[in-house]
Amino acid sequence: MKVIKYPSKEKWAEILRRPALNTESLFDTVRGIIDRVRTEGDKAVIEYEATFDKAELTSLAVTNEELEEGVALVSEELKAAISLAKQNIERFHAAQKFVGKKVETMPGVTCWQKAVGIEKVGLYIPGGTAPLFSTVLMLAVPAKIAGCKDIILCTPPDSKGKIHPAILFAARLAGVDRIFKAGGVQAIAAMAYGTESIPKVYKIFGPGNQYVTAAKQLVSLRDVAIDMPAGPSEVEVLADDSANPVFVAADLLSQAEHGVDSQAILITTSERLQAAVVEEVERQLAELPRREIAEKSLANSKLILVNDMDEAVELTNEYAPEHLIVETSDYMEVAERVVNAGSVFLGSFSPESAGDYASGTNHTLPTNGYAKAYSGVSLDSFIRKITFQEICSDGMKAIGPAIETMAANEQLDAHKNAVTVRLRNINHKS
Amino acid sequence: MKVIKYPSKEKWAEILRRPALNTESLFDTVRGIIDRVRTEGDKAVIEYEATFDKAELTSLAVTNEELEEGVALVSEELKAAISLAKQNIERFHAAQKFVGKKVETMPGVTCWQKAVGIEKVGLYIPGGTAPLFSTVLMLAVPAKIAGCKDIILCTPPDSKGKIHPAILFAARLAGVDRIFKAGGVQAIAAMAYGTESIPKVYKIFGPGNQYVTAAKQLVSLRDVAIDMPAGPSEVEVLADDSANPVFVAADLLSQAEHGVDSQAILITTSERLQAAVVEEVERQLAELPRREIAEKSLANSKLILVNDMDEAVELTNEYAPEHLIVETSDYMEVAERVVNAGSVFLGSFSPESAGDYASGTNHTLPTNGYAKAYSGVSLDSFIRKITFQEICSDGMKAIGPAIETMAANEQLDAHKNAVTVRLRNINHKS
Repeated sequence: MKVIKYPSKEKWAEILRRPALNTESLFDTVRGIIDRVRTEGDKAVIEYEATFDKAELTSLAVTNEELEEGVALVSEELKAAISLAKQNIERFHAAQKFVGKKVETMPGVTCWQKAVGIEKVGLYIPGGTAPLFSTVLMLAVPAKIAGCKDIILCTPPDSKGKIHPAILFAARLAGVDRIFKAGGVQAIAAMAYGTESIPKVYKIFGPGNQYVTAAKQLVSLRDVAIDMPAGPSEVEVLADDSANPVFVAADLLSQAEHGVDSQAILITTSERLQAAVVEEVERQLAELPRREIAEKSLANSKLILVNDMDEAVELTNEYAPEHLIVETSDYMEVAERVVNAGSVFLGSFSPESAGDYASGTNHTLPTNGYAKAYSGVSLDSFIRKITFQEICSDGMKAIGPAIETMAANEQLDAHKNAVTVRLRNINHKS
Repeated sequence: MKVIKYPSKEKWAEILRRPALNTESLFDTVRGIIDRVRTEGDKAVIEYEATFDKAELTSLAVTNEELEEGVALVSEELKAAISLAKQNIERFHAAQKFVGKKVETMPGVTCWQKAVGIEKVGLYIPGGTAPLFSTVLMLAVPAKIAGCKDIILCTPPDSKGKIHPAILFAARLAGVDRIFKAGGVQAIAAMAYGTESIPKVYKIFGPGNQYVTAAKQLVSLRDVAIDMPAGPSEVEVLADDSANPVFVAADLLSQAEHGVDSQAILITTSERLQAAVVEEVERQLAELPRREIAEKSLANSKLILVNDMDEAVELTNEYAPEHLIVETSDYMEVAERVVNAGSVFLGSFSPESAGDYASGTNHTLPTNGYAKAYSGVSLDSFIRKITFQEICSDGMKAIGPAIETMAANEQLDAHKNAVTVRLRNINHKS
């Protein structure tokens, strides 16, 4: 960990610099896989599964029998925990439902928006050592609430061709329609273009390694929407002297264990806290199973002491963290001044873990400073707002002449004429 | 125009096929320009302006004097029309303001969203023969309502180094903070990375030719957000026997005059109307100044006769038009069943021109079938929704054990520990 004290403003950019993402260098490799899946369909996906996941598959869809078999293996304790989380995620996202109101912008000119679920969505859940069933909930629950008609999920099988039981359970609970055994670039390509088994979708969601990220970017250039660009996960703890160093250290470590490229940053106004956190991180680290990953990640982490809360907030908004934990005595005031962050955790008893799993907020969030321009996944991510307008003859009389003038000045006479023929018709009748 | 009668469902994909977009083939050319602007800043932009816009510039920012001078040249009639449009756009977008509500997902667990304007946004307005001042309103008005702090606009100057007066007027009226003389790829690059004069922004909006589109795609891979992918503009008119062929023809032509790659489609249940529209298009076409463009574009346009309204709606949702004009006797019922479209115009007196200019809805909309996954530009495009959560000790006691179970099962022990240390603290105190 790097302990930094009272950095001058000129140093900020350097201190806040993130490791550079470079998915473009992978584009050629990734494009090759995408093209083969696009041309050869299931056959290519099955071959890539053998190569990359060492799984010998004869078909890609998870059958009902497999689903039941898997679900039966999940402990009651985990089922209860997942169900509790699902309920909270459902409550928070259901409250985000959008109902458009009709606005009469001028007499006789009525405009409104209607929210409609994206009909076909594809969720990607990475494999690896940890089964990310929490991400299944974070994506499938809002998709269901949004009214998406076809919710499919791709996730890589293990070398025996099986999907982790907890992923199967979460998918069934959250209302996923079909599950497919496919991972990596081949899964993204299959959802973008469709194969014999895997349907083409309109939008792809979910995390993944740099190859998956590159594949999502490539297919999004033309063929399908994606949730957001992805980068390594990150947390910032913003704390004053009132913060508990044990909590702060635990929060930094929970980010650090994600991966060696994870970022964990403390910004504090208290020199005492800064020193206490250094000690406490060392103590807790010794007890962690994923110590090695966390240690490497912590090598890049920074504990930054600043002059006052104004500076702390300014530096925070400049960094635009994915996760921001505010552990200060006046945390609600600080919250008001946060303008760039993905998700904010307020007070002593709101660790990032709560939002990662069970409080109800979404954990798919903008990394890499993208919080300056992007929101995290929410119900909005699964809908479109279509605009409607109904203009009656009086409305047309009111705005028609302005439209004619504007269209003529943009040299679009047919645009003007579409109004002129109507005004003529109205005047003729009246 | 191609007159198609009762096509079988197998033919739909072929009939609805759009001209292929291929911006990727431009990436190498475009990347060269981007890289130079990124390295050399203003100097490169000024040189590209000389090359591409034949404008000899010494500085890029529009001065206050230039602004006043330009504004003085706009006719009172046009000023009044632009002001009326601005007022309606403002009313419709102001009604879209989002106020997050606090949701107690469990006792002691409170979650909410806060909408915050994107601090720095860049608007791109293309040059060419027609000055798109309407697009200035469509982008700057919602940006202002959203609370964006720095709203900049880039648009190419003419060969005398001047910006069209109506663009200057609209920009000032709508609250653009700074205007720069820069067009094409160099403008996009300047806004993505910043130069000495042009500030870096977090999100870039606006239409453009294929080079501009390619540039937006490239910079969006890593460095800045963009509004949406772009393609040629398109309209579908969905009409029954009650429709006025004069209006329908005028609407098809108003799309066709945009460019030779524009798409104009009629889907109708009435053979009589289909025939009448063919005749009427010919008649109106003869009177159009942009006849040549419209004629070329119409060569690809289709007038499709279907069996009934159910089929008409299904075909429409399959096509997912950018603009959809519904001129049927039961248009409100049809509107209910539209799930894939950008903006929908209902009834006889709602031409696309109304939404293009002055009714209040936005005219920056998803083309190329993107309406299946994307919304048009709205207030949402200029904000982010940050999530917040506040968990009190009772709340932590309620959800803590579920989080511990889930984290342990995802093999993320530090995540679990961030809860454990808090539960221990709570139990110790109580």
